Amino acid sequence: MATEMPVSPLAPASFPDLPRIEGVRFSTVAAGVKYTGRTDVMLALLDPGAVIAGVFTRSATRSAPVLDCQEKLGGASGPGAAILVNSGNSNAFTGRNGTEAVRAITRATASACNVPEERVFTSSTGVIGEPLPFDRITAHLETLADTVSADSIEAAARAIMTTDTFAKGAGTTVNIDGQPVRIVGIAKGSGMIAPDMATMLVYIFTDAVISQVDLQKLVSAHNEVTFNSITVDSDTSTSDTLLVAATGKSGTDVTGNSAFSDALHGVMLDLAHQVVRDGEGATKFVEITVTGAETDTDARIHALSVANSPLVKTAIAGEDPNWGRVVMAIGKSGAPADRDRLSIRFGDVTVAESGWVSPGYDEAEAAAHMKGQDLRISVDIGMGQGAATVWTCDLTHGYIAINADYRS
Amino acid sequence: MATEMPVSPLAPASFPDLPRIEGVRFSTVAAGVKYTGRTDVMLALLDPGAVIAGVFTRSATRSAPVLDCQEKLGGASGPGAAILVNSGNSNAFTGRNGTEAVRAITRATASACNVPEERVFTSSTGVIGEPLPFDRITAHLETLADTVSADSIEAAARAIMTTDTFAKGAGTTVNIDGQPVRIVGIAKGSGMIAPDMATMLVYIFTDAVISQVDLQKLVSAHNEVTFNSITVDSDTSTSDTLLVAATGKSGTDVTGNSAFSDALHGVMLDLAHQVVRDGEGATKFVEITVTGAETDTDARIHALSVANSPLVKTAIAGEDPNWGRVVMAIGKSGAPADRDRLSIRFGDVTVAESGWVSPGYDEAEAAAHMKGQDLRISVDIGMGQGAATVWTCDLTHGYIAINADYRS
Repeated sequence: MATEMPVSPLAPASFPDLPRIEGVRFSTVAAGVKYTGRTDVMLALLDPGAVIAGVFTRSATRSAPVLDCQEKLGGASGPGAAILVNSGNSNAFTGRNGTEAVRAITRATASACNVPEERVFTSSTGVIGEPLPFDRITAHLETLADTVSADSIEAAARAIMTTDTFAKGAGTTVNIDGQPVRIVGIAKGSGMIAPDMATMLVYIFTDAVISQVDLQKLVSAHNEVTFNSITVDSDTSTSDTLLVAATGKSGTDVTGNSAFSDALHGVMLDLAHQVVRDGEGATKFVEITVTGAETDTDARIHALSVANSPLVKTAIAGEDPNWGRVVMAIGKSGAPADRDRLSIRFGDVTVAESGWVSPGYDEAEAAAHMKGQDLRISVDIGMGQGAATVWTCDLTHGYIAINADYRS
Repeated sequence: MATEMPVSPLAPASFPDLPRIEGVRFSTVAAGVKYTGRTDVMLALLDPGAVIAGVFTRSATRSAPVLDCQEKLGGASGPGAAILVNSGNSNAFTGRNGTEAVRAITRATASACNVPEERVFTSSTGVIGEPLPFDRITAHLETLADTVSADSIEAAARAIMTTDTFAKGAGTTVNIDGQPVRIVGIAKGSGMIAPDMATMLVYIFTDAVISQVDLQKLVSAHNEVTFNSITVDSDTSTSDTLLVAATGKSGTDVTGNSAFSDALHGVMLDLAHQVVRDGEGATKFVEITVTGAETDTDARIHALSVANSPLVKTAIAGEDPNWGRVVMAIGKSGAPADRDRLSIRFGDVTVAESGWVSPGYDEAEAAAHMKGQDLRISVDIGMGQGAATVWTCDLTHGYIAINADYRS
């Protein structure tokens, strides 16, 4: 499927040049889980000493691999570790067979990579409810273990794609006490993307030295304002997983360092934005900022109500500065609002204030902003200091086309 | 706009033959509020003695006419009353001008119809945020008052349409103690339809004798399982209004009568279903029933999560029995569920049970059900006795086409 779709018009020009992270190597294989003619399994092999933090979907019907990862997270960090991911089949809602498939894959990975089973984390992404033919994966594990390379991260990003139209990567190098610390990440995801995390598969690697507990704190906090603040279609996947591994190989301790925290936030935000930019059928990238709400939580409720409104999203697709639909979305959100204190901007154009259209409003100006590819909608509730920003895309014929016949 | 769209494939064959309700008469006019070449204002004139109950949108940004109706409801029921509705402009988010427009219209209606201003209820539906040219309406009020007729209910239903592709009416006659009591209603609505009521404009008339308090209790209770249980696009209008007027002219007291209550429920459900059948771009009418939840409220949360999921709705459009997306929607709803106790049916075909695909599942059978126009999806949560049913439609290219250029 994925390879047949045209690349999103919002895609970056190319996969970024990412720094190498000492202590992690990648390999991929075409195992034929479901797709043919492309890679569909990736292995990330971590040297002993790596610590791993993670965040997972909160779905009540989460998949067998997610349940398995959640049990293992926070365990011993001495030995080596492996992350094994397949695309094409999510191994979700597969009952007892799902658990058995996870066990077979983790056992084979542990054996091939010479790491403990408790240090093997797996993810599966693709169709829900079909048995995962795990023997197609386990048959390739020796090969995967034998071919790992520090240079294969772009190939890894490609192997985990499903309806994605481009491979997603981001990275940075931050100087801490004069020493370089590197962070790189890959992600997949383009539909079934909504907050209440983790809404996709994301793997981030750094050579920083940090404890599992401290890394988890950073990851959880940044997750709220990155991956938990994007939405494509308000649907939440049963499978989604964010894992962050710190190999420690830079020798630089980043505990409590704000430059590292900012850099990690930057990589997470970059990947989150790339997921929105590959939103199914997306032609516009939209930043929605709400200020002046009673609390930050209220601001977030308002912002997500705007971001998830089909009427707002189709208006954006039609390049129509239809601020009436923004008023509607604020009104229905459930968070406090007062019609007569609202003000709304499209880009830098104030379209509405004090409960009515702005006296100086020039629709031509707002319409010009809507013709761009990167849009900003700002709403001030006029009641307090609460603020939030979320990101989304428009709702187009492309979304319908992709999802009305994905499985058939 | 409305008149240019093809009629929904789910529309009834024709407007129903409705019984006359003594004590209410209708008239319509083409006032040119926004549309040309069609009627856009309707008057329903009620004889003295009518009692009126209502339910309104809970939007925090509700329109000036809604606020005005809410203030008036429950007032004295002695004198005559009038309901005055325009299409083309919703008079929502129009600030102080909105309140003034309502006042001008109610004053002119009261004067032309010789009823008190406190007994004039107005609604406006159409574009948000543009000033309502109320003088175009008030200019026609004498004509409207002079031309009322007991036979004009279908014309009234046509005058309140916006993106509707067919006029919506329903009615019944119920025998109480050997005496006929009649109920008729009209509705408009096809987009911006979601629970948290009232989601559209609905006017129902009966010649029953009943107090305002008792009528309001019935209307509020039935509203929860009719208009509050339908969703087209999860968006909630700023304007929506349900008014039920009892003229008392049958002379039959229906207080506490279950046959009357059932008949009223039937008319409300019929109109609610017609709104879904005119859902923007709809090609399938879908009933979603959830049983076995811990509470009725949980069942409703699950059912609405399925009904509002863009991935479920696009799968239905594609006639794909993609029950994995139903699992996803249950999982994300926030209400308790246990993956391994779920069972799911499409029509009469059990597709999944005990956490996995049903042993006897035949996809061809489920696919055959999906080709129909009226679909049923049933989910049993397997945890308790809570149940709920909601109704929705599919999400198609038609929805995108209608909403990406509605205003331009």
